[in-house]
Amino acid sequence: MSARDEFALIAALQRVHMGTTPPGVEVGIGDDAAVLALGDRLVWTVDAQVDHVHFERGWLDAEDIGFRAHAAATSDIYAMGASPVASLASYVLPHDAGALAEAIAEGSRRSADRHGAHVVGGNLSSGTELSITTTVLGRCQRPILRSGARPGDGLYVAGPLGHAALGFRVLRDDLRDARFDPFVARWRRPLLPITTVHVLTNAHAAIDVSDGLAQDLGHLLTASGVGADLEASSLHDDELVRASHGTPYAWLDLVLHGGEDYAIVCASPSPLGGFTRIGTCTEAPGLRLRGSSGHVSVVAPQGHAHRF
Amino acid sequence: MSARDEFALIAALQRVHMGTTPPGVEVGIGDDAAVLALGDRLVWTVDAQVDHVHFERGWLDAEDIGFRAHAAATSDIYAMGASPVASLASYVLPHDAGALAEAIAEGSRRSADRHGAHVVGGNLSSGTELSITTTVLGRCQRPILRSGARPGDGLYVAGPLGHAALGFRVLRDDLRDARFDPFVARWRRPLLPITTVHVLTNAHAAIDVSDGLAQDLGHLLTASGVGADLEASSLHDDELVRASHGTPYAWLDLVLHGGEDYAIVCASPSPLGGFTRIGTCTEAPGLRLRGSSGHVSVVAPQGHAHRF
Repeated sequence: MSARDEFALIAALQRVHMGTTPPGVEVGIGDDAAVLALGDRLVWTVDAQVDHVHFERGWLDAEDIGFRAHAAATSDIYAMGASPVASLASYVLPHDAGALAEAIAEGSRRSADRHGAHVVGGNLSSGTELSITTTVLGRCQRPILRSGARPGDGLYVAGPLGHAALGFRVLRDDLRDARFDPFVARWRRPLLPITTVHVLTNAHAAIDVSDGLAQDLGHLLTASGVGADLEASSLHDDELVRASHGTPYAWLDLVLHGGEDYAIVCASPSPLGGFTRIGTCTEAPGLRLRGSSGHVSVVAPQGHAHRF
Repeated sequence: MSARDEFALIAALQRVHMGTTPPGVEVGIGDDAAVLALGDRLVWTVDAQVDHVHFERGWLDAEDIGFRAHAAATSDIYAMGASPVASLASYVLPHDAGALAEAIAEGSRRSADRHGAHVVGGNLSSGTELSITTTVLGRCQRPILRSGARPGDGLYVAGPLGHAALGFRVLRDDLRDARFDPFVARWRRPLLPITTVHVLTNAHAAIDVSDGLAQDLGHLLTASGVGADLEASSLHDDELVRASHGTPYAWLDLVLHGGEDYAIVCASPSPLGGFTRIGTCTEAPGLRLRGSSGHVSVVAPQGHAHRF
């Protein structure tokens, strides 16, 4: 892309993100860097969404790409018990994707309108592979790490599990049926459990579920030096069971190993509003699933093979 | 890359960046996000280095790629008159580049050892095109924007101009000669003018020179609503003139339109230690160059066509 194209594009993206300067941001898009004036403890993350790795352009429109990229990065902020403040977006754009940049920015703005973390700067580069890298700052009083879970803590989840994974699979395998629409929508535009952040302050440990419950919960358990028993009955999801019926996808596999839910799982000594209890932390390491018949099976900490 | 490869790589990168947690960073690599506790005004930027766009892997080693990526992003922090605090690095790695990741991280650490902004987190993704996206936070008392230059201000530069551009061109055109070595080194590992940041507090406006003096100074002038006269004699650089003699590259073109200098140009009402005066801001818009004969030519705000 020529320098003139670059600067025209920057101006267009500035227009998309204009008027959304959040409190604490003194200088937004247009200088060498954004300027923030923040007194609190800050939480800071970065995440990339890469064409052919995290999505295929035929599966979603450009606004969805921007929404997904922004929401996926913001999910890490919620997983720390923090509130999103602002973000920067770095685009690598192939020649045929330059025209998509404004719509991608619109999608990011829509995610920011919902989740916070408005875009206050970024970077443009040409390349052969479309990718959107988003860095997000949030603030919190006390960060909820992965490492604080204790034996006896309850395990709680906010946000449905397996819905986005079903949406992803029917897109990938080109299964068309209106009953899949809500699941596809869930994959295209992750809806983070934003109302749950405030109650996370009572949790001992938390992580967001991006690579599947088994894998991400596995990270939390390892970091905390504990294991867990999950109750299969608490993972049962009528909508998911009905929609996945007759497909090649087993609902429990979607829930445990599906990925891209952007739900939050946490360990807490007491119930948390908006969260559903799914199990209990144990001294014994490993992750086990107890079926309704009382049968216990070991769950492998495997995730969503599609993503890196 | 498989999930197992990903987690092994994260562990390796954690080892590279371990023990470099800067003040104000409470949680580094390993949780959902880094945690910062910073009371000052913050400056925040993001920059991407993409294979075949910003470099070719044959032109530099993996440590150079990491050093460049980190230094290029950090340059924006200095250009705001701020001090680097910490950074996050997001890698997109093709299958054949996974083995490079540790050396890239070593290079970033070397840049951070020199410039500050140690890596406290990041992201890994597979992809077909190697890219390193770096986001840096800095802090400052008063940010130096692009927009504060006034007619009569002197224009000052810190860091040599055109050196990296000569290095880039001889690599690109495969001209081998030991006399080019320092220029190639300058391109491979940008040495930011770190000692100059403290004196920038007296400047009215500043920008880093990444796309060539003419283009980046042009941004500063446009943002400030002023023009400038440059003195050709002040841009004369003996080392560059000697090394570029007999090559297809005119030294003045390298200085004005070369790019990737990561020097700082600023407008200031008074001289700044470590900076060289190169001209004066004017009410008349546009950028002019006054030769030693008194001849004045208009300089087009064109930059380094190679980069985006």
